Formats: sequence, C-alpha cells, structure tokens
Amino acid sequence: MRATKIYGPGDIRVEEVADPVLKTGIDAVVRVVAACVCGSDLWPYRGVTDTEEPRKIGHEFVGIVEEVGADVQRVAVGDFVIAPFYDCDMSCVNCLNGFSTSCLNGGWWDGAQAEKVYVPHAEGSLVKVPSAPSEELIPSLLALSDVLGTGHHAAVSAGVKPGSTVVVVGDGAVGLCAVLAAKRLGAARIVAMSRHESRQALAREFGASDIVAERGDEGVAAVKELLGGIGADCVLEAVGTEESMDQAIRSARPGGMVGYVGVPNGGPKLPVRTLFANNVGVNGGVAPVRNYVEELLADVLAGSINPGRVFDLEVPLAEAPEAYRAMDERRAIKVLVRP
Amino acid sequence: MRATKIYGPGDIRVEEVADPVLKTGIDAVVRVVAACVCGSDLWPYRGVTDTEEPRKIGHEFVGIVEEVGADVQRVAVGDFVIAPFYDCDMSCVNCLNGFSTSCLNGGWWDGAQAEKVYVPHAEGSLVKVPSAPSEELIPSLLALSDVLGTGHHAAVSAGVKPGSTVVVVGDGAVGLCAVLAAKRLGAARIVAMSRHESRQALAREFGASDIVAERGDEGVAAVKELLGGIGADCVLEAVGTEESMDQAIRSARPGGMVGYVGVPNGGPKLPVRTLFANNVGVNGGVAPVRNYVEELLADVLAGSINPGRVFDLEVPLAEAPEAYRAMDERRAIKVLVRP
Repeated sequence: MRATKIYGPGDIRVEEVADPVLKTGIDAVVRVVAACVCGSDLWPYRGVTDTEEPRKIGHEFVGIVEEVGADVQRVAVGDFVIAPFYDCDMSCVNCLNGFSTSCLNGGWWDGAQAEKVYVPHAEGSLVKVPSAPSEELIPSLLALSDVLGTGHHAAVSAGVKPGSTVVVVGDGAVGLCAVLAAKRLGAARIVAMSRHESRQALAREFGASDIVAERGDEGVAAVKELLGGIGADCVLEAVGTEESMDQAIRSARPGGMVGYVGVPNGGPKLPVRTLFANNVGVNGGVAPVRNYVEELLADVLAGSINPGRVFDLEVPLAEAPEAYRAMDERRAIKVLVRP
Repeated sequence: MRATKIYGPGDIRVEEVADPVLKTGIDAVVRVVAACVCGSDLWPYRGVTDTEEPRKIGHEFVGIVEEVGADVQRVAVGDFVIAPFYDCDMSCVNCLNGFSTSCLNGGWWDGAQAEKVYVPHAEGSLVKVPSAPSEELIPSLLALSDVLGTGHHAAVSAGVKPGSTVVVVGDGAVGLCAVLAAKRLGAARIVAMSRHESRQALAREFGASDIVAERGDEGVAAVKELLGGIGADCVLEAVGTEESMDQAIRSARPGGMVGYVGVPNGGPKLPVRTLFANNVGVNGGVAPVRNYVEELLADVLAGSINPGRVFDLEVPLAEAPEAYRAMDERRAIKVLVRP
C-alpha cells in the first residue's frame, strides 16, 4: 500500500510500504476513506521536533473495516468507522473514567495518511457509523477523529455551560471547533481571537458573537471591554505556545478556567503566582476524543453541527506534500487527504 | 492599643500603636477577641520574603464590633463577628461571582494580631454570629476566618464530591482543614500525607481514611497502591513549594484535578507537559473564604464540624513572639493569640 512518510523538516513523501496484517484476534485493518493533516504534524515538518528516522505520519482517519481479528464483535468487515487519533481499549479504568488517551493498553497509530491503518484494539477504538454516510458527511465524520472532539475537550475542561462567557484563543481547526463546541454547550457569548478574515467568518458561522483581532495587552484589554471589565468565565486555548497560554490566562476573569488543548510544544511556563492571585485554573490536555464520539456523532448525523467546514482543501494521497505546504503556509485551515 | 509588628526575620514585637479610627461611613472598628498566626506569616518571619520596614502583621481574627460608620446596617456595635483574612465589599462583580479575594474595592488588614482592627468595608467583610458564642466555640469560629475556608476552597477547586478519592498534601492547619472539608463534601476515601504522629491523629479525627508518611517517588507509589493503581480523583495541595506541588500533581489520576491553596512562595514551576499528557488540571488560589463563611458557619454552630481543633497552643498577645517560634519550630499546628 501507499503511505505518507516524513523524512525530516519539509520532507514529506508518499511511498510504497508493507500492508498491515492482523496479529492478535482483537485487532482490525481499516481501509482509509479520508485522513487529514494535524497542526501537531507541523511540529516535525517545521523542525520544531526532531525526526530521527523516516517514519509514517498522520493520526486522524475514517474508513471501512477491511479485516477483523477472530474475537472482534462490535465492528465487522464493511462497517464505516471513525477512529480517534489514538488506540484505546475502552475497558481499562482510565478509559472508563473518561480519559481514553491514558488507556493502560493503548498507543498511537502507525501512520494514518495512508491507504490502510492497523488498529490494535478494534472494539475500543473504532466507532461504527450506523449507515454508510453520504459524501458530504465525510468531512464532519473525519472531524470527530480529532479536531471537534479536541475543541469540545477544551470547552468541557474549561467548564463551559449554558450562559458562560467564553474566549477562544487560536483560530486553527481546533480553535474553530472550540467555538462550535462552546456554542453547542450553551455559551451566552463567545469571543474568537483571530486576525484572518476567512477564519473570522467561519468562527461567526460556528457561533462566535465577537471577534478580537488584537493580541497581547491590546487583546486582553479588548476582551475585558467586551466582558464586563473582568474577562471570561472560560477561556479555550488551542495553540500551545507560551504567548497563547499567556493570552488565555490573562483573558480569564478571577475564578475563571482555562481549558487548554494546544500541544504545549516546548512547554509554556505557567505563571503560577498570577494564576494563584486571580484563582484562574488551568485544565485540559491531550483530548480523550474517543469518549466524546458518540455524543458528538449524534449531532453530526442530525445535521445540527457541521464541523467538516474546517476542511477547506482536499488533495489525493499522492499530493500529501502539498497538504503539508498548504497547512504550513496557512493557505488552508485544514486539509483532507483522500487515499 | 497594642499590636504585633514584624521588624525582620525572627524579630516579632508587641508595641503600642495608634488606635484605629472611623473614616468613611461604611467602615468599622472591631475589638479582637481572638487572632492567630498563619503559615504565610512565617514567610517574612523566616526571611523568605523581605520586610522592608517594620509593619503590623496578622490577618485572621474574630471579635466584637466596637464602632461602625454612619451607613453601616448589617452589623452593629456589640455584634460578635467573623472577618475573612482580607477586606471585601461583597457587592462587586468578582465578589458576586464567588471570588471576593478579587474584590474590586477590597484590600488587606493592617495587622490583626492586635487589640483592634480597622475594617474598611464593614458590610461586606464582617459576618455576624447569630448569638454570643461560648468560649469553646471561639477557636472554630476563628478557623472560619482563614484555615477552614481555605481547606474548603482546595476541596471545591479540586471538585470533591460524594464518592471522590482524595489525597491531601500538607499537614498544617490548612491541610488538616482540607481533610475535614473533603469529608464534609462526601469524599469516599481521603489519604492524608503526613509524617507527624499528632497531625496524623488529627487527620484521622477529621476524616482521613489512610495516612501516607512517604514523600517523593515513594509517596506517589504508596498513594497509587491505595487508589486503584492510578491515583486520586482530587488532590488538595496546602503547602506551596515546588516539591509539594510536584507531589500533588503526580498523586492525581489521569483526568484528576489538583486544588491548590498553598501560597506559591517563589513560584513553583508547573510541569505543563506532564499535566497535558495526563489531563491533570490545576485550580485554586488565594481562597475567597468570605464567600464560604455562612455555609461553613452553619455546620460549626450545629456542632457537626470542629475545625478549632487545629489550634493546639494559645498565648496572650504579649507573647506573640512565642506564637511565631512555636509555629516556626512546628511545635504547634496553629497558635491562637488572645489580646
């Protein structure tokens, strides 16, 4: 089969690799219908993290089950399935606590920007879509594999509830999905921080009531002016840099909560004395999207949310390098890759 | 009147100072019945923070209203009152949001280890005890001015609810009150981390189900062994050092929450990548105890909790220096000072 590999900064190739094979009886092979490029894939692409040797890349996908192990019962050959961006068994204590990203038996996909993916825990990881989806629905189903669930996790971690005031820091696909998630949870007011016209427009479509284009001190001042002089009940951070975390913390009101899902690349320092003085909490992490799939899928199937709108470019698998370039240059919010 | 002043590390004196006087119409002067020494008073005493010039010290007290401004209606001369450890108006947006420590018009007491205290916002800060309390009740009422409310804030910030598993890091008065607060909120299991026999005993009296004396890696291992191999739902941090925060974070299960109220002196670094990977949140800060007084007072008056047990030494005001020595040398958990 063909798969996307990263060789080093800026060096993405699509190559022939060995087909995955069943091994354990509880596994599956899924033929990928759609995959995509994640903001976190850009870290090795930009050389921010090292690529010690060439490896398959990609972790978000939907597809059709091609083979299952002998003991797999909840999914069958031919099912259209959504996978979260990681493997999990959904039966260990952490999965049952709602944190399947800490599955005691889970792990990470060996490259999803490919024709097929090997799934170690088929019963846990894969969620069957009740009937074969229409073409138009595929981007929104793909969004359930990471970005919508991650935006939702930011909102849940920040405690968004009906009537909350919310600020969203970050206008990438996750930030935009965080806007959608906050709206879905009943936020009364949602301020999206964005400097890009097309992303501002999608933020408004997803439910943002206000846009703040300023950053830093000016951004904080603009947020406070919109939100009663004190800041937001809930701030959703979807970038992961020291600057964005600082923006988030300073946008929260005393007693507010920052829900963060941006991978803290390099490890932003948390200004604990500021947090302490203002009773601002910081909650979140790598999003347990598998625990959210069923709840969010129901709304996607009902047509009440359309998170697939974040995909504004689609390329065939052979053009995966262009997908990375478009994301890197911010020409696209998120790129869908079709094997 | 006489008041306690700090001159520098280890240098506490009781001196004659000017009596406080009314100024604004919304203020009060309270004659102190009981005050105490806070763990945070030990920072300047130990020279960890600077004392640039001699100043009055102490911030926890209960007493009897001696004078009120012309516009004060909720308290009257002769009332027995509880003050939180700070001044607040209880009418600004932050007070109404539950975070009176961020009162837009509040501030800090000018020395409560004294015969009298000037209270700028009498209506907001002071809570009248319905009838004159017995002598035995005074320590528990004094605990409402800081340590019980602060322990309660750790528990609330960590989201303790019926059935929660809880670890408490710190066996000072606040840590012990955090045990009491967790029990009161229905925690199913409470692990107190303590190496001191008398404090372990009080922790058990307050509701701890288990004691862990080990610290560091051994402490984390012991906690995990007690709590299903994964750690606690809620960890209450009541110390404020880098070591104690590390202990707290590593004692939380994936998806758990650290509620911290230990003043982060020196600013412990928060290991954001560990927090992120395990979805451990950090919430808390300087405790808005004024917002909790009524709720907790009801239980104190009903006799269902007895937080005053943390006071294991009482000295007259003239012996305030001995109160500091006893706290510093950990001969006492908490010292009550009687003007």
